[in-house]
Amino acid sequence: MTSAREEQRYADLRRLIDRTLGHLARSGGSRDLAEACTYVLAGGGKRLRAVLVLLSCEAAGGRARDALHAGTALEIMHNFTLVHDDIMDHAPSRRGRPTVHTRWDLNNALLVGDVLMGFAYRELLKSRSPHVGHLVSLFTDGLIEVCEGQALDLAFEHRATVTVPDYFRMIEKKTGRLISMATEMGALIGGATPSRTRALRDFGHYLGRAFQLQDDLLDVVARQEEFGKVIGGDIMEGKKTYLLLTAARRARGADRPLVRALLHHGARGLGPRRAVVPAVTALYRRYGILKAAERLIRRNTERATAALAPLPASRARSTLVWLAHALVHRSS
Amino acid sequence: MTSAREEQRYADLRRLIDRTLGHLARSGGSRDLAEACTYVLAGGGKRLRAVLVLLSCEAAGGRARDALHAGTALEIMHNFTLVHDDIMDHAPSRRGRPTVHTRWDLNNALLVGDVLMGFAYRELLKSRSPHVGHLVSLFTDGLIEVCEGQALDLAFEHRATVTVPDYFRMIEKKTGRLISMATEMGALIGGATPSRTRALRDFGHYLGRAFQLQDDLLDVVARQEEFGKVIGGDIMEGKKTYLLLTAARRARGADRPLVRALLHHGARGLGPRRAVVPAVTALYRRYGILKAAERLIRRNTERATAALAPLPASRARSTLVWLAHALVHRSS
Repeated sequence: MTSAREEQRYADLRRLIDRTLGHLARSGGSRDLAEACTYVLAGGGKRLRAVLVLLSCEAAGGRARDALHAGTALEIMHNFTLVHDDIMDHAPSRRGRPTVHTRWDLNNALLVGDVLMGFAYRELLKSRSPHVGHLVSLFTDGLIEVCEGQALDLAFEHRATVTVPDYFRMIEKKTGRLISMATEMGALIGGATPSRTRALRDFGHYLGRAFQLQDDLLDVVARQEEFGKVIGGDIMEGKKTYLLLTAARRARGADRPLVRALLHHGARGLGPRRAVVPAVTALYRRYGILKAAERLIRRNTERATAALAPLPASRARSTLVWLAHALVHRSS
Repeated sequence: MTSAREEQRYADLRRLIDRTLGHLARSGGSRDLAEACTYVLAGGGKRLRAVLVLLSCEAAGGRARDALHAGTALEIMHNFTLVHDDIMDHAPSRRGRPTVHTRWDLNNALLVGDVLMGFAYRELLKSRSPHVGHLVSLFTDGLIEVCEGQALDLAFEHRATVTVPDYFRMIEKKTGRLISMATEMGALIGGATPSRTRALRDFGHYLGRAFQLQDDLLDVVARQEEFGKVIGGDIMEGKKTYLLLTAARRARGADRPLVRALLHHGARGLGPRRAVVPAVTALYRRYGILKAAERLIRRNTERATAALAPLPASRARSTLVWLAHALVHRSS
């Protein structure tokens, strides 16, 4: 299949998810709650996790549509975590729109997250798979791990020394788990054998890693007009990304104080933003950190696609391979 | 059975729940998260919902222990809602201890709530009942309804006219649902017939109503040394309780402005607290509102115990009847 046809396939599945999410979000509570739920669920996004569930199901031998409820459930769970994360990070906007706690208030954002979690389980329970018990259990483990990952991320803010392995442990929980869960749930619904289930879960695992590293990298190398977020935001906040933590290990001489200052209190007190971001970007380049990140992304993408080898060739498998590469070349 | 023996039975079941909760709450996330989870789960409380699951299971013909996981799960869910409600209500303390967001911070309290929800499902999934799918579904509906109830409660704060029926719709979701869910889950695990399941659910429904009305009443009539909360707190906040909403309907003449002022902005601007609370309490008495609340509590308690008629006589049924009466005579 050509890249254009893969892109079309992705767009089709994404639209299917968007439509399903659009029908949800009615709530018997207050009008505010129902409006805010609709606002969140109809707010767009790549629908990556949901599409991965559908494609993995198909690649495992099932029909993509059989995984629609599970994919939708996972997408709702993802959105619940975003709403609560945005509160914790004091984020004013997401995907170009005000965050829920900005548009409504903290209380509504808190409750929207909570009720979305309920909607996610309700949607998951609609799955007609004989493995629904296993799905709910997987889903629950994922919920707990995502919270643990977020807790680690918060704890890192106040921790003097965070290592690159610490970072990988954190993103594995915070970002990676929902992605490997997506492919594992799809495999389960598609009736995959244990070895194929493992193949799809491994694919998700490496893909999640590449995805998060790419996220870190985009903060520095994205073009503003495509990015949707502020470029250099992670640098300004002193966020302990792969880039900054690697810089902490590699920087020498006069570069060390800058990196240490960033790690301790971000760019506060380091002068105007338009000077700090290019200075740090130049430092990353000088120490080969951007190249190292690119190499790691490439390696994880290769491992992801290699993991798919036990699956028979199929349209879905090709789309998964295409998707892994497309995500690495994304601009937002 | 004498009341002392019933009390002992309740205490035994409560200790069983406490022990089970004590073993939980380890988390692979940050130390803060694990500590805060333990703090919440080991924080005491009546364990009413959990005990109701166990007793209902036994009254339905099962063994109380078979419902231990479900009871524990429901208790965790209840505690999750308390942690998030306390954030929304800016509550500084609960059960005589600082709330999670006071002792730690908002972010930790938010995450503790989220991860407890995951723990609740994980606990529920340990149930060895053949009805585990049904249990998860019931549990999920309950989660959604509790959130909807809390949303209504928040919306009421800013709504000019709230009626007594509105109030009952709200507490039915916010407080009542977890209680009728407790008895229904117990019935399910105990293998009750549909008519006995209905009996136990109805028991929970009326009990929940009586319980919440008693809660409203205690704000006014409790003795400070036993109460654990500040007496008259609802009055000071202008909380739209059964008492205040009934006063809004009954008050005449010079009493109307006081009630209207309370409904609009609580006791702010009405003079010192030690004058407002007794004045409003006197007003409630004068219009027979405390009597009306007591009558309603009695009627709902009677309906609750009458609902148990389809169940065969048993030790558990007696304990449920005793419990319904004990809750009405509680002092905190």
